[in-house]
Amino acid sequence: MSRSIQVVEAIPILKANDEVARENRDLLDTQNTFTVNVMASPGAGKTSLIIRTIEALQGSVRVGVIEGDVASQVDAKRVAESGVPVIQINTQGGCHLDAHMVKQALLRLPLSDIELLFIENVGNLICPVEFRLGEHRNISLLSVPEGSDKPYKYPGIFAMVDAIVVNKVDLLPYCDFDLPAFSELVTGINPHTQLFPLSCRTGEGLSSWTDWLLENLRIPR
Amino acid sequence: MSRSIQVVEAIPILKANDEVARENRDLLDTQNTFTVNVMASPGAGKTSLIIRTIEALQGSVRVGVIEGDVASQVDAKRVAESGVPVIQINTQGGCHLDAHMVKQALLRLPLSDIELLFIENVGNLICPVEFRLGEHRNISLLSVPEGSDKPYKYPGIFAMVDAIVVNKVDLLPYCDFDLPAFSELVTGINPHTQLFPLSCRTGEGLSSWTDWLLENLRIPR
Repeated sequence: MSRSIQVVEAIPILKANDEVARENRDLLDTQNTFTVNVMASPGAGKTSLIIRTIEALQGSVRVGVIEGDVASQVDAKRVAESGVPVIQINTQGGCHLDAHMVKQALLRLPLSDIELLFIENVGNLICPVEFRLGEHRNISLLSVPEGSDKPYKYPGIFAMVDAIVVNKVDLLPYCDFDLPAFSELVTGINPHTQLFPLSCRTGEGLSSWTDWLLENLRIPR
Repeated sequence: MSRSIQVVEAIPILKANDEVARENRDLLDTQNTFTVNVMASPGAGKTSLIIRTIEALQGSVRVGVIEGDVASQVDAKRVAESGVPVIQINTQGGCHLDAHMVKQALLRLPLSDIELLFIENVGNLICPVEFRLGEHRNISLLSVPEGSDKPYKYPGIFAMVDAIVVNKVDLLPYCDFDLPAFSELVTGINPHTQLFPLSCRTGEGLSSWTDWLLENLRIPR
């Protein structure tokens, strides 16, 4: 008996993700919602940076947040106290956000009321790098106690981001972090990236960061 | 025309990994090489803990090290200065070590001269958890500046490790880290895990950690 075999060509996972990311980007552009994908190690201060930025822009920019975590709503609860719309994504073990997850969150957010959307990715310096979400800008944080050698070990993320926030500069006196060496290293990997040394604890350096955000906010309008 | 179709059933990736991990474990048992898989976020102090432990056990235990990193030999070079045998695995973008990579490294190490082998995993709190390497014990580090809420967000790693090192306790005065709350939280998730607050910088608390290692070293002999 002759049988013809139907073949479904699998769409590679990253290509399928990119397609949904483009749909997300179209939606965000239509709604004039400028979107920043925030990536870092666990504990680098992603949530603190977002909360500090919400406080600094209060009254001038309407912010919304998507929180990505393997489990829990700890960060979403912290952000919600700032009074902005927030959606928690729990990846249930997944090590990064993808465009499909973000799409589900976007559909639940009042995007027409959000001018600046932060997507806080899962704490991970490796896996989130390949997955576009629809964002306009990618940023990473590196905190001072993590050490200034990280670009050697995780070059992918430092090569692709539009800005790098060096958080916890208040701990510089107690840690071996060489800020000039770090700056030289990341500029070598990524000449176009912006560097913002700051402290979410003390507020030092925050205004340069928010100035950059406000400048960029204007671009897609 | 009739055609019989040959089917190769794919071995699920974790099952295939487990098989190689068992081979690694057999090899390590044969050589009496007690092996510890060290997992943590980037910058938590994995390499520093290994170097401090090598120094503390010098003259009494022969140590070897496998270094896992996405890229670079930064950590392997630091470890090599301690005079112990060390092999660097570069995962070329991979977010965790697996048993196949470790097998290649084991074949290049003088195992009969190594009583205690550290495998420093890639800096990542999520992906290494599922991949057994052949190790006898799994440990994770959490550093004080990362914050004491991490077990809520990354429960998988805290549930599976035999010991948790809380590193950088010298930074406790400058950070919001609630050590009793952290202890209660991880004991709730994992009643059998051991907790070692210490500072690789000052040496505080290191002896409890090395005592635990020495106690465990005797088990597989």
